[in-house]
Amino acid sequence: MKGNCIIAQSGGPTAVINSSIAGAIHECLKHKEIKGIYGAINGILGVLSENIVDLRKEKPAEIDKLRKTPSSALGSCRHKLKEEDLDKILSVFRKYNVRYFFCAGGNDSMDTANKVSKLAQKEGYELRVMGIPKTVDNDLPVTDHCPGYGSVARWLAISVRDAGLDTEAIYTSDTVKIIETMGRNAGWITASTALAKEREDDAPNLIYLPERPFDNEKFLQDVDRVYKKLGHVLITVCEGLKNKEGEYLTASRRSVDTDGFGHKQLGGVGDYLCDLIAANLKIKARFDKPGTIQRVSSVCASRTDLNEAYLVGKVAVRKAVSGMTDMMVTLVRAEGKEYRCFTGVTQLENIANKEKKVPDNFINADGNFVTEEFLNYVKPLIGSPLPEYARLRKYSVRL
Amino acid sequence: MKGNCIIAQSGGPTAVINSSIAGAIHECLKHKEIKGIYGAINGILGVLSENIVDLRKEKPAEIDKLRKTPSSALGSCRHKLKEEDLDKILSVFRKYNVRYFFCAGGNDSMDTANKVSKLAQKEGYELRVMGIPKTVDNDLPVTDHCPGYGSVARWLAISVRDAGLDTEAIYTSDTVKIIETMGRNAGWITASTALAKEREDDAPNLIYLPERPFDNEKFLQDVDRVYKKLGHVLITVCEGLKNKEGEYLTASRRSVDTDGFGHKQLGGVGDYLCDLIAANLKIKARFDKPGTIQRVSSVCASRTDLNEAYLVGKVAVRKAVSGMTDMMVTLVRAEGKEYRCFTGVTQLENIANKEKKVPDNFINADGNFVTEEFLNYVKPLIGSPLPEYARLRKYSVRL
Repeated sequence: MKGNCIIAQSGGPTAVINSSIAGAIHECLKHKEIKGIYGAINGILGVLSENIVDLRKEKPAEIDKLRKTPSSALGSCRHKLKEEDLDKILSVFRKYNVRYFFCAGGNDSMDTANKVSKLAQKEGYELRVMGIPKTVDNDLPVTDHCPGYGSVARWLAISVRDAGLDTEAIYTSDTVKIIETMGRNAGWITASTALAKEREDDAPNLIYLPERPFDNEKFLQDVDRVYKKLGHVLITVCEGLKNKEGEYLTASRRSVDTDGFGHKQLGGVGDYLCDLIAANLKIKARFDKPGTIQRVSSVCASRTDLNEAYLVGKVAVRKAVSGMTDMMVTLVRAEGKEYRCFTGVTQLENIANKEKKVPDNFINADGNFVTEEFLNYVKPLIGSPLPEYARLRKYSVRL
Repeated sequence: MKGNCIIAQSGGPTAVINSSIAGAIHECLKHKEIKGIYGAINGILGVLSENIVDLRKEKPAEIDKLRKTPSSALGSCRHKLKEEDLDKILSVFRKYNVRYFFCAGGNDSMDTANKVSKLAQKEGYELRVMGIPKTVDNDLPVTDHCPGYGSVARWLAISVRDAGLDTEAIYTSDTVKIIETMGRNAGWITASTALAKEREDDAPNLIYLPERPFDNEKFLQDVDRVYKKLGHVLITVCEGLKNKEGEYLTASRRSVDTDGFGHKQLGGVGDYLCDLIAANLKIKARFDKPGTIQRVSSVCASRTDLNEAYLVGKVAVRKAVSGMTDMMVTLVRAEGKEYRCFTGVTQLENIANKEKKVPDNFINADGNFVTEEFLNYVKPLIGSPLPEYARLRKYSVRL
């Protein structure tokens, strides 16, 4: 089918979503069916407002550079579709003769893509819609993992290891350190901090995921036990921790912080837990909250993640040109010891508005760390090995 | 003078303080006057408790690796000396025949080193004491800059640039982002975030340093102006901002968070300002607080900083062997356009317990950004250029 294509980026930026866009553009350039290669500025909002750019006019060198440029070069949005938006989108697609729609995003974005496609089918407008997976949260179902996740995992593995050496060195004043990570209701990001640990007593000492109800008493016992053993504790927690009543440990106090999908902006867990520790254990605690910095770091981008992100962008285009629609490209891990990854596809409706939590076999029985199985899952995703550090043996001088 | 030496690390860890220790050890190995090369574990606390290690027994390859290992490999401390500690330190030095004391640290550490030296002189115990400058805060007087600063500046330049692209991309939901940096009462670290900006509207849009009294009204006007122009705002602030009454914007609520020197643990400025913006401008704000992660990142360590840290470690030993004592090594920037840096020395008492603030000519008239002069000062310190990103031109499609 001949016509123009539109590429859109949606949801939270990542270190590698631009690599997916580069992959899609490079693949589009190979197919004569695809005429105009358009970009929607700020995702679906760009379609709604006809803020559309011509990507064929960009210099090839700039498109190449997208492969290592973090964040979303076309801009992104969080916008819950209204009923009337769907008609508008379709009318814009007709107006611009858009026959291919490539949407890079997470579960919300796949919902949008799916609805647009279904409306087009109902109205008999020929349109091929393909989803390109993207989310640092790694919470999309079906796909083995999501582009974007490997890079935030790498960032955290390195940063938590460095911060752990910091805590270990200066435990005389900074006794307990809490690092609050992103991830919302899924603990994948927080879990990846376990990669920082090389030896038994290394950071992180404790990890808390939102997949387990958080229990203040149990937490304080855990912290106290590690503190008594080591004299310092490094704890990683997910921003979305909830108590057993299912309430966020600390609902945000501000009134304007709900996004278009009604998701509450989370945060404050680190601060809350520092208070809890200070009040009950009378030891000093501080928290680091790297926030958005963790998800868009160019210098910690995983080589594996960058390559896979590029690949899913290319495959989305290839599949659409071959006639496929209403699918999202997935990553499929091959069996066997050595890490190899292929692509597959799944219906958009299998992804739309769904969340994949960290499964039970990836969380230890105590609910305060991950299992070896999880480490085997996550390790290949962060690419090359972490930098190697000196480990002094510290031979005592005895007089 | 023949005898043993002790090397100690003190204060907050950095990305390059171990490079200084490697420099000192490598230089010690060249001088036959220096017999035992000892390390004090956790700074002066290791001397007090005779927790002393033999660095000659470490594998040379491990010492080499220190050049790229972040944090403080010998451990650090914050410990305000008591009167009786001084006698104890000197008795340990006598017992271990320590004739050289190399102390890597900031203004508090130089105070400790100075007091030990003065007591030794009073008691007629021959001891050579040399300070090795170290502090991410860059607040030591006399020296042009401090090892450790260039690396945190590099980390922030990269991270704020990445986070700025993130804010720009998803401003539809994350409108205002505040990044809270370290630095305590000096704005050097916060100021370095200006390196992230390549173009007029790039992040950071506003920078607030503790050298200027913080004015809520003025701040809200600044934010509102940028918001109306761009639709999003990225602001970097120092943890130690104070109002015109000289009070920290948000004194920490916890009771156990004062270190050995009576310094309050700062923090919460980001959260405070988000509330201020939400309440007054009714726009959404979030904050990132990278905390200790910013100061010990190995992957963002500045090559220039690593080399200078190594150099000051070597020079401290060389000077002591040649007969010098009671001095700290300084970095002296050569005149001229091209960056070149030499070493000098200054009396420990010129450093002890003093803070160097960001001078007026480095802060703009509005008190909400830095000057070109500051950028010229800081740019060479971060080493190699920042990674180059794609900048799409975004040619509109007009039908």
